[in-house]
Amino acid sequence: MAQRESIRADHGENVLIIGESETDADLYYATRFLVSVTVMYLEAEGKKTLLVNDLEYGRAGAEAEVDEIVSTTPYEDRLRAADEPVRLTTVLDLYLRERGIRSLTVPAGFPAAHAERLRERGYVLKLRDDPFFPARTVKRPDEIRAIEDTQLHNEAAMDLAVSILRESEIRGDLLYHGGKVLTAERLRLEIQRFLLERDCLAAQPIVAGGDQGADPHTRGSGPLPAHKTIILDIFPRSLATLYWGDMTRTVVRGKATPEARKLYRDVLDAQDLAFSLLKDGAEGHKVHEEVSRLFKDRGNANEEVAGKKTGFIHSTGHGIGLDIHESPRIGKIESRIAEGQVVTVEPGLYYPGVGAVRLEDTVVITKDGCRNLNVFPKVLEI
Amino acid sequence: MAQRESIRADHGENVLIIGESETDADLYYATRFLVSVTVMYLEAEGKKTLLVNDLEYGRAGAEAEVDEIVSTTPYEDRLRAADEPVRLTTVLDLYLRERGIRSLTVPAGFPAAHAERLRERGYVLKLRDDPFFPARTVKRPDEIRAIEDTQLHNEAAMDLAVSILRESEIRGDLLYHGGKVLTAERLRLEIQRFLLERDCLAAQPIVAGGDQGADPHTRGSGPLPAHKTIILDIFPRSLATLYWGDMTRTVVRGKATPEARKLYRDVLDAQDLAFSLLKDGAEGHKVHEEVSRLFKDRGNANEEVAGKKTGFIHSTGHGIGLDIHESPRIGKIESRIAEGQVVTVEPGLYYPGVGAVRLEDTVVITKDGCRNLNVFPKVLEI
Repeated sequence: MAQRESIRADHGENVLIIGESETDADLYYATRFLVSVTVMYLEAEGKKTLLVNDLEYGRAGAEAEVDEIVSTTPYEDRLRAADEPVRLTTVLDLYLRERGIRSLTVPAGFPAAHAERLRERGYVLKLRDDPFFPARTVKRPDEIRAIEDTQLHNEAAMDLAVSILRESEIRGDLLYHGGKVLTAERLRLEIQRFLLERDCLAAQPIVAGGDQGADPHTRGSGPLPAHKTIILDIFPRSLATLYWGDMTRTVVRGKATPEARKLYRDVLDAQDLAFSLLKDGAEGHKVHEEVSRLFKDRGNANEEVAGKKTGFIHSTGHGIGLDIHESPRIGKIESRIAEGQVVTVEPGLYYPGVGAVRLEDTVVITKDGCRNLNVFPKVLEI
Repeated sequence: MAQRESIRADHGENVLIIGESETDADLYYATRFLVSVTVMYLEAEGKKTLLVNDLEYGRAGAEAEVDEIVSTTPYEDRLRAADEPVRLTTVLDLYLRERGIRSLTVPAGFPAAHAERLRERGYVLKLRDDPFFPARTVKRPDEIRAIEDTQLHNEAAMDLAVSILRESEIRGDLLYHGGKVLTAERLRLEIQRFLLERDCLAAQPIVAGGDQGADPHTRGSGPLPAHKTIILDIFPRSLATLYWGDMTRTVVRGKATPEARKLYRDVLDAQDLAFSLLKDGAEGHKVHEEVSRLFKDRGNANEEVAGKKTGFIHSTGHGIGLDIHESPRIGKIESRIAEGQVVTVEPGLYYPGVGAVRLEDTVVITKDGCRNLNVFPKVLEI
């Protein structure tokens, strides 16, 4: 039970999170305790407390960076003896009464049923919008190192994937590798296997050839095409540190069309424009507007064609850390960027029948600009 | 946009879910659309609607099993033009006004901030406790097949792991394989790699030797011990179907102590007892009580020793499907088991210094009993 400096967001407020840190990054950030069952985290009167069931009690004591581990069992037994309902909120109520706590600040995503039950019992609940811990958006040096480390593995995986594509043989419209048709599934498996050896999990890397790439979140399937854009978007999570990496390259094995080459140039320039604008104090939505304007000025319209949205159809970037997508956002919603934040920069253009191009790097915001954690080359034709 | 029969839980209620289906299994269950950004799902007047941003629009049209895909962009533009805040709930409000919908049933875990904002705008929100879709707890034949399929891969992975342990050489207190010390990390990697080839993701399989196993959720690390209990708990998710599998075996490479053998026999008998009690209509908490009583009758006490809870310190089992842990539970909380549900049965005993034993199978509840999806042998000494 290692102690750590307080990360309390606002002095004097009691903080409550109920959840599983496997899916709740705020909870992991606050406790450094990875758990796949629901636990309750409380920060009150300068003390960090974790309420857990017996299954997690011993491990929490050894791993959680909090001041106190409390077993829920005695509270459950008391409730049962009194013939009261045994619920997370009734257990919590007993514990909070002992400590005289009546007001709590909870995340915007706090489960509504828990909120309702706590309010029924007289608690004053204050919801705080994201980011729940504003400090979480600004990465400490050890956090930047962790992201950088995942991103290094990611670059090596990208290198493997691009090498396989480059080595592949073009026969007609398809690619062959080792005598067999090269499929998205096979290339994805190579990426996943490579990352797993480095204790990184890439659940759904995108390997999307041709028009598949025009749906930016399509995982990709089937034979990979020659002479067409192939989007490789890899976002592994380190199983050791739990920090994510995220990067995208677009390549054409063979000869790209002039239209695809133009898309690539526009995306490359848009990304450079964003790099040049990002720095401490920059406004995220302004950066996104500039990127959107560059695309429009170069004749890349946003239109719906045959049930698909085409053009630049997503944000310019997002914060990354213990969540793959976290604050700050670089999109239409207003945001201000600060030194020490880590964000992706990933403009893209999507036109079925023409090409789909996305380039994504992860950068650390500095006082006067940003530092790119990616060095992997950007080359369209391979 | 394939159509499917309605899965609406209560006739006449409008259903709303806001979330990402990658972490919200109800949302995936309702839409069969895998998405890692927040979307809004509405079921009202017999129509299933998915509100998505432009990034997901085309893919949702192709993949989501709903009646209507709505782009949030025009609503966002209207809000911006009116200088109104652009939020999920303000977008939703515009859409719901058009359809004249004023009351909504949402999950217990619905984000409290969204609930608050919708109520401020006059919506009547009703929270429904888990399971949100009661039908989700009873598996259709295709769902049982999907779980069975994942579990088949899981058994093959278990076979690999046990084979490696069996082949390992005992030198002193440690195990050697291929001339090197066999570690938990190496065995875990073999399991993960094997499952990945079968398009299954095992993020954190447990390989916990000796006292590490006494914390049931410890991942395990370092050299694996000879002559001591080693817990192998593997829970992969199929990336193709998204259904989970879950199973646990405990083995000793070498010679088990009489104490470990007794623990193993007690756990085996407890599991058989649970199998004999599980059937349509059985009460989950009664099954758990019987299992707990068997353990106590055989002298296995629940005590805290040196900051660890020891004995039988978790539930007897849990539902499994699109979530690794879902309704129904077989533990202290009251529950009723029904035909077609799929649950794990996993009693365990944990005594640091003596041994840690858990055996886990996944079963389908039938009218008169249960059908075990696992056939993998239960042998302690290998």
